[in-house]
Amino acid sequence: MSEHFKPLPALIPIAVSARHVHLTQRTIEQLFGPGYQLSVHSPLSQPGQYAANETVTLVGPSGRLTHVRIVGPPRTQDQVELARTDEIALGVDAPLRESGDLEDTPGIRIEGPAGSATLEHGVICALRHIHMSLTDADVLGLKDQDQVAVAVIHNNRRMIFGDVIVRASPAYRLELHLDTDEGNAAGLNSGDEVMLAELAIGANLD
Amino acid sequence: MSEHFKPLPALIPIAVSARHVHLTQRTIEQLFGPGYQLSVHSPLSQPGQYAANETVTLVGPSGRLTHVRIVGPPRTQDQVELARTDEIALGVDAPLRESGDLEDTPGIRIEGPAGSATLEHGVICALRHIHMSLTDADVLGLKDQDQVAVAVIHNNRRMIFGDVIVRASPAYRLELHLDTDEGNAAGLNSGDEVMLAELAIGANLD
Repeated sequence: MSEHFKPLPALIPIAVSARHVHLTQRTIEQLFGPGYQLSVHSPLSQPGQYAANETVTLVGPSGRLTHVRIVGPPRTQDQVELARTDEIALGVDAPLRESGDLEDTPGIRIEGPAGSATLEHGVICALRHIHMSLTDADVLGLKDQDQVAVAVIHNNRRMIFGDVIVRASPAYRLELHLDTDEGNAAGLNSGDEVMLAELAIGANLD
Repeated sequence: MSEHFKPLPALIPIAVSARHVHLTQRTIEQLFGPGYQLSVHSPLSQPGQYAANETVTLVGPSGRLTHVRIVGPPRTQDQVELARTDEIALGVDAPLRESGDLEDTPGIRIEGPAGSATLEHGVICALRHIHMSLTDADVLGLKDQDQVAVAVIHNNRRMIFGDVIVRASPAYRLELHLDTDEGNAAGLNSGDEVMLAELAIGANLD
């Protein structure tokens, strides 16, 4: 790690993701009834993704969280994305993971209006990440799975987030995704911008 | 601001402060009954401060938070300290402030077992800060009200928090106080340690 700090000029818009679930069609039908189809509440910034009108209740050993949004379209695996604050409220200890990496993750109970489902696994705390197109990645000198840092400079809770994963794909639009703990700790709201930066915490730590 | 990053070697233990209230004796009696005295649940690290057995309910425009701990002893002003996540749950928009700086802050309704109180003001999001003795401050080359940065390096949610206020007083013990959003965003728990660091986000930003 460099001892010298080299700020990169790119500004990156952010989105703060509140707790949400991705569900399989099978689980959707368990919770909402046979043949049920999700309906679109509002499109999300990543192409094809949407916040559904449908919400569920998560039930953990020490608490419940109601009105948890389903993000569509249906997926091939059930996945529950929580902030650490949510995990504490529910009594669940889920690891930091990239979306889709669900091995050895805890499960949870989900309740819907027509039934409930008990997931054997699938609860994660999503690793912060930057979606970007391959063109953006080229311009920034980055590639898929690189780790970068970003600086929050627009308010009086300035900070630098390290360990931000780059997720580059033709379908993605440039956007840093934080969970609500990260966004709230930095006083950020969706639509704010951060700078690519470098997490220089001393050459002696490498 | 320096372009060069100069890590400082000091390790600082942290404490994560969950939402809590400091109350006047008058408000305590409104909530718990005439002549009521707080009882000690457990001492806190700063000398003389304690978590009381007593808790209250906070009632905001969009939600309630139950079991909110009172921190004793009683004070001369009512003060409610929330994380931003708590503010959103309650529907309150409180500014980042140092403890005691309550001018132009929003109020809130507080319920206890024997009555309720409506504060006209006193709700804040506590600025992160490091308590330290005057001796510690001397050793670290810091003084009361200095602003520093700290680096979280012990896990895979590394980050640097800027805008950390130094609060030096003979009565204080060395400890970084974060709120739950900050602690959870960094994957920290009370008792973990951070390093003094420098928030180097580019000379062009000063």
